[in-house]
Amino acid sequence: MTDEQKTIAFVVYPGLTPLDLVGPLQVLSALAEFVPEYRTVVVGATKDTVGTDTPLQVAPSHTFDEVPSPFALLVPGGTVPTMRAMSDETLLSWLRTAAASAELVTSVCTGSLILGAAGLLDGKQATTHWILRDVLAALGATPVARRWVEDGKVITAAGVSAGIDLALHLVERLAGRQVATNVQFAIEYDPEPPQGALDWANQPYGDLKPLREHTLREGLAANPALLEKLLAHA
Amino acid sequence: MTDEQKTIAFVVYPGLTPLDLVGPLQVLSALAEFVPEYRTVVVGATKDTVGTDTPLQVAPSHTFDEVPSPFALLVPGGTVPTMRAMSDETLLSWLRTAAASAELVTSVCTGSLILGAAGLLDGKQATTHWILRDVLAALGATPVARRWVEDGKVITAAGVSAGIDLALHLVERLAGRQVATNVQFAIEYDPEPPQGALDWANQPYGDLKPLREHTLREGLAANPALLEKLLAHA
Repeated sequence: MTDEQKTIAFVVYPGLTPLDLVGPLQVLSALAEFVPEYRTVVVGATKDTVGTDTPLQVAPSHTFDEVPSPFALLVPGGTVPTMRAMSDETLLSWLRTAAASAELVTSVCTGSLILGAAGLLDGKQATTHWILRDVLAALGATPVARRWVEDGKVITAAGVSAGIDLALHLVERLAGRQVATNVQFAIEYDPEPPQGALDWANQPYGDLKPLREHTLREGLAANPALLEKLLAHA
Repeated sequence: MTDEQKTIAFVVYPGLTPLDLVGPLQVLSALAEFVPEYRTVVVGATKDTVGTDTPLQVAPSHTFDEVPSPFALLVPGGTVPTMRAMSDETLLSWLRTAAASAELVTSVCTGSLILGAAGLLDGKQATTHWILRDVLAALGATPVARRWVEDGKVITAAGVSAGIDLALHLVERLAGRQVATNVQFAIEYDPEPPQGALDWANQPYGDLKPLREHTLREGLAANPALLEKLLAHA
């Protein structure tokens, strides 16, 4: 790393959804190859390997302590383990400090709930995975149903795969349209969802309230105060 | 694991492109949650953590020896390290054995070149990352420019992000349309590429021949016979 490099830090914590992390990491690491002014790092409480919500295990390149002041940060989401991470004071404390000086504070999926738990969404428009979107209101944010939501330096993406769209948007914001197109060709991002676009009028999960409550209760059993606050919007 | 479970094995090797792996892994791990008849595993020569072409490190859940006969397998791609993996006899030997009894042999991006190096693409229609597509002909395959190409039990996807589309196609093939839609909602896969669709008539990299030759020469320096064979189609 040179002094001039701008560091984009991707947060790892146990049990995360790896596609939330790896979609944007792949895109922004390609940015760093085209524009060496940027570098990507993966940060965690320790450099130990942690599990994900798949059989893959992942390990960060740096500890939180080694990257106190990134240029940008991204928090991935997940299911129950992400709710647990909302009470992880080591993570929340790093996020608060890093976000204060960062120029971009971003999340994918329920990663925005962690930003909210750190107090970083107060008064902001934000989004998250569609199933938990309403819960954002309990954290001081105004929930918005869009692929990604930009409110000043806070940019939050919708569920899981939306991180790729968010990241290509960030590349264009940081380095312009041509570099974003170069990166898009590099990852051959020309989606052809075999089942077509999502039909939101016919989402297949039925009543979301029990789903939401179950996830929150399981993940926040050890933090009854936060659980009550979120259940009021579930 | 129960005796009845069908194992979908995702291959890890040093230096791979993690989005090639994690896109389909996330999708097929969601299939396994909806249909417990399936399980996903991540396999490698050892369970040690390996690097990727990003700062993320990854570790498999199983060794090759522990999963000799998966129901399905998927090989991710990458750049120079993937060319090197084309000479990795431990990997190629596992692939040949596993593919013989597997019902699905799949790849993302340049992972198909590894399948080809193992002799598994002979006489098959196949695809890979667009930059290296022509090289498939040197491995006995007929290169096809499609998002994914199905030829019997061999299904190959185009570059990096195409693995998500491939995997949703596999979910529909294995478990039907409704489960595929459930998974698509779970990962909120409703892409909005900020720069629009790729404009193939104006790909930004210019002449691909020097790019291809550079990648092949760097990755296959230790395997001059294979290098010569591939350069003839580069």
